[in-house]
Amino acid sequence: MLVDCDVHNLVSSPFDLLPHLPAYFAEQVKRHGLMLPGSSHDSPTVFLRADARPPGGREPGTDAKFTAANHLDRYGIDIGILTGSSVVQVSAHPNADYGNAIASAYNDWTQAAWLDRDPRYRGSIIVNHNDPEGAAAEIRRKAADRRFVQVVMASASPVPLGQRKFHPIYAAAAEHGLPVALHFGAEGCGINGPASVAGHPSRYLEWHNIIPTHYQSQLNSMICEGVFEKFPAFKLALIEGGLGWVPHLLWRMDKNFKGLRSEAPWLRKLPSEYFFEHVRVTTQPIEEPENNEHLAMVLEALHAERTVMFASDYPHWDFDAPDGTLTWLPKELRARIMGGTAAELYRLN
Amino acid sequence: MLVDCDVHNLVSSPFDLLPHLPAYFAEQVKRHGLMLPGSSHDSPTVFLRADARPPGGREPGTDAKFTAANHLDRYGIDIGILTGSSVVQVSAHPNADYGNAIASAYNDWTQAAWLDRDPRYRGSIIVNHNDPEGAAAEIRRKAADRRFVQVVMASASPVPLGQRKFHPIYAAAAEHGLPVALHFGAEGCGINGPASVAGHPSRYLEWHNIIPTHYQSQLNSMICEGVFEKFPAFKLALIEGGLGWVPHLLWRMDKNFKGLRSEAPWLRKLPSEYFFEHVRVTTQPIEEPENNEHLAMVLEALHAERTVMFASDYPHWDFDAPDGTLTWLPKELRARIMGGTAAELYRLN
Repeated sequence: MLVDCDVHNLVSSPFDLLPHLPAYFAEQVKRHGLMLPGSSHDSPTVFLRADARPPGGREPGTDAKFTAANHLDRYGIDIGILTGSSVVQVSAHPNADYGNAIASAYNDWTQAAWLDRDPRYRGSIIVNHNDPEGAAAEIRRKAADRRFVQVVMASASPVPLGQRKFHPIYAAAAEHGLPVALHFGAEGCGINGPASVAGHPSRYLEWHNIIPTHYQSQLNSMICEGVFEKFPAFKLALIEGGLGWVPHLLWRMDKNFKGLRSEAPWLRKLPSEYFFEHVRVTTQPIEEPENNEHLAMVLEALHAERTVMFASDYPHWDFDAPDGTLTWLPKELRARIMGGTAAELYRLN
Repeated sequence: MLVDCDVHNLVSSPFDLLPHLPAYFAEQVKRHGLMLPGSSHDSPTVFLRADARPPGGREPGTDAKFTAANHLDRYGIDIGILTGSSVVQVSAHPNADYGNAIASAYNDWTQAAWLDRDPRYRGSIIVNHNDPEGAAAEIRRKAADRRFVQVVMASASPVPLGQRKFHPIYAAAAEHGLPVALHFGAEGCGINGPASVAGHPSRYLEWHNIIPTHYQSQLNSMICEGVFEKFPAFKLALIEGGLGWVPHLLWRMDKNFKGLRSEAPWLRKLPSEYFFEHVRVTTQPIEEPENNEHLAMVLEALHAERTVMFASDYPHWDFDAPDGTLTWLPKELRARIMGGTAAELYRLN
């Protein structure tokens, strides 16, 4: 089984969302577009793969049928998990009602324009973590459609996502058996702080290099605050944040926990144990050291046979093709990464 | 040769600095203490080792003679690099003149109260990076005393430290053959942003776990902005930030550089090459995976024989003893880490 955990479904224009928006906000979108806070930087080469453009001149990633042919058919992908695209920034918008409305519209549009078009697609319910109760309500509104297999939200936030104000989101997700995925895209914009803990990076290269520190910070917060103790059924997917940093953070958290555990009496296991049980990470963009043995050690240290899932990031510039990813791994481990673990997490069988 | 790259020399009270402060600020310190922005958290166990308390009831780390006996003599340490202590927060103070004055006073006090007391001590010139020209002037003021072997400044900043506004510091350091060290302690306080890129961590455990993201962000900025191309003699020491994250960041930087190098045309080498040539990291608090082979791989990936230096962090709670650090390493590699590399960096022979 081949599962791609990060396929982007993009709107052609904000007008695609109008039928799904309340009239009050639809009028504003008609006049001003999506008004979501954007990045200060763009990739200096190209952002969307030039060879992934559908016929008729629309942008790559905007046509469900074309993506199915150009990507799913081409690589024999059994299931493609849709993660939305630029509207992940709803959580960074200062108006929580507007963020909620755009998220809901995107979810409705994803059903009609993507999930109904090819049975290999599965959806992610986009939510606005700036309004945790609103996000929980959105999860409950869409969870009945079992083609939605997870919740997705921005990896950037002004306050660490483990804090109890966010727990209504995790309660709702766990209640419906849905993992919550973090995806980047809102770093350094809107109500969020700078994209690096040392301030705003100057350029896209520097910005892109440092994105994994957001995943480190959120994972640290969610483990330390006891989210996985409080919601034993809750699962977390870290999408597009790399994975080479995971062993370092687990080692550091475990070592510190041994000396400082009195601060988190609600934790009954080592931090790393929560990770192995509850957290999954995706491959793209995977670190590529000169020496494969170094990456093999990283995969061993993070128990890759149960924590790592393939993702392509289609149709973004730094796309990883399934037939070019980790081809040197032992067959059994590679099968887990290319689909086995995702099939379990998303209950695809 | 045994070199400890992180020995803390603390003032007993702010009054120690009064003889070295201009009268204007001395009056304020008499009334209000150091007024440096402090952390919101303390270690829940103990912050300074209870067994490192000098006779007479003063705080650990405040007595040069006692530290020499209790630490240097005890472990046969040939050279102890003093890194100061709480005044690393001068860079986080909103008044640049005040930050400069405290830094200068601390440097003068370090000479009189420490460097003059034992020939095994070497000093670090503390500077305030919130005033780069002031910091450069302080380097030039103290560099004549060759017992100062480096510059030290806070690893936290509101703006990434690779940006050109900070270059006067690196120019002055390189001019005098002094490495610049980053040391933590100002994360999340004063003029800096929150201690994690996702916002303020709730507790000390969570705060301490995530400190290495500051080092990742600063190293990324300094490499991407071309600091090491502009100042070929410049060396950077990352103290107390861990090292397990280094391979991940180098792999990610190198991979991104191959696709995005048009953004940084001033770079003539791979990001990792600048690291290996110009950057050194210290051991304490070193990651301690269950499996030593995992740490051995990390050390191999970061070319530990030329980039890693021993540090104890005496007298802090998470102190690492020289005779308990990396004892399982091959003898030759361990000798490089325990003193060989530091002797070269600090020209100790």
